[in-house]
Amino acid sequence: MTSAKIRLYVEHPLGQGQSVPLNRDQAHYLFGVMRRSVGDLVALFNGKDGEWQADITEAGKRGGVLAVKTQSKALQMPPDLWLIFAPIKKARTDFIVEKAAEMGARRICPVQTDFTNADRIRQDRLQAHAVEAAEQCGGTFVPEVCELQKLSRVLEEWPEDRQLMFCDEALVGAAKTLRMAGGEKWAILIGPEGGFSQAERARLGDAAYAHSVSLGPRILRADTAAVAALTVWQQALGDWT
Amino acid sequence: MTSAKIRLYVEHPLGQGQSVPLNRDQAHYLFGVMRRSVGDLVALFNGKDGEWQADITEAGKRGGVLAVKTQSKALQMPPDLWLIFAPIKKARTDFIVEKAAEMGARRICPVQTDFTNADRIRQDRLQAHAVEAAEQCGGTFVPEVCELQKLSRVLEEWPEDRQLMFCDEALVGAAKTLRMAGGEKWAILIGPEGGFSQAERARLGDAAYAHSVSLGPRILRADTAAVAALTVWQQALGDWT
Repeated sequence: MTSAKIRLYVEHPLGQGQSVPLNRDQAHYLFGVMRRSVGDLVALFNGKDGEWQADITEAGKRGGVLAVKTQSKALQMPPDLWLIFAPIKKARTDFIVEKAAEMGARRICPVQTDFTNADRIRQDRLQAHAVEAAEQCGGTFVPEVCELQKLSRVLEEWPEDRQLMFCDEALVGAAKTLRMAGGEKWAILIGPEGGFSQAERARLGDAAYAHSVSLGPRILRADTAAVAALTVWQQALGDWT
Repeated sequence: MTSAKIRLYVEHPLGQGQSVPLNRDQAHYLFGVMRRSVGDLVALFNGKDGEWQADITEAGKRGGVLAVKTQSKALQMPPDLWLIFAPIKKARTDFIVEKAAEMGARRICPVQTDFTNADRIRQDRLQAHAVEAAEQCGGTFVPEVCELQKLSRVLEEWPEDRQLMFCDEALVGAAKTLRMAGGEKWAILIGPEGGFSQAERARLGDAAYAHSVSLGPRILRADTAAVAALTVWQQALGDWT
């Protein structure tokens, strides 16, 4: 059996013999945009049951039905890693969400820092970006995009069993500090483009769970820093080894 | 003395007492867009002489003059690293050039591979992107963007003393192979989104200078792969340690 070229995220449970209904948007994409029709093969994933090959059995303007056949990939969960970042301009925020999904983060948390001026995000739009990135990169998991929270609040409620890697030009550490810290639950905090405030820096400096890591001698934009930091972490402690 | 917030790339030599003329575009940016005027401070760099603070001494619609005062940063050359990649969609190609400049590459080489369909690039536009990225990231060096070449040609003429790190899903290596290979002159080759052809893969597999490195279990887009590969290299052999 050849594999489907199109990968679609659905919320429906997936298993052999399941019938999966398509909503209007999915039907429009599959039949209108991608010109697929009854009998064509589509790959489905829902973030829980791995990837499955499915046949189109009904195709209409407002919906359709897929018949699930065989599993083509087991669920591959990324490491238990959160990416916490201060939202920047729209295109670069979208980019950070896309990259976090591709690079293997489990949760994506936009935060307001003392020097961030974003006071709202479109959580639904960012979540849709994460879905699209998973569809494109062959992933079977979609990271959850959280609502915007204050960084101070996130740090106040920090879970005891989670380590934090943060990237700050003013503080320098090396990737080996990550390996020494160990642990399986982690988060990466990307500093805002205006840098952390003194209060934030003091708080992070005092926290036993927080480990600073250097991203080299040049100043990186927040979106570059996100990909670089995910790479450093995945290489030291994640599933790249 | 406070430092200038605006950083401008110029082609003129820089040194104490130098007068630097501005062209029409620079004058428009500095006086029209950024609203600077005579007496204001600007940081200048030319990719050779480091960063210098300069005073605006003449400001007009079609030009202006800056008086160079003191050096604020020495020239910081990035490692002797080339980034070779197959151009993709415009926005993502721009992004790769921007990221290579930020992450510290010395030369950026777009190539045509067997599975690339780009047959031209706008070298001047990409070079301008590299300049802008250097202006923004506080760099004192601007990587050179080469004209589009065929990958087969680049490999035929490969310099004897340069190592090549390439990233290919079909071949797996680890960052420590980089450290074992050593050497100071390197290039990173990012596979095109359609993958390498059998011929290209065979050629790279046979070459003693070529070292394959894995970028994890997920498929990365070419722009993500560029930043991730630069991070892996900079951490193993570059100036991040």
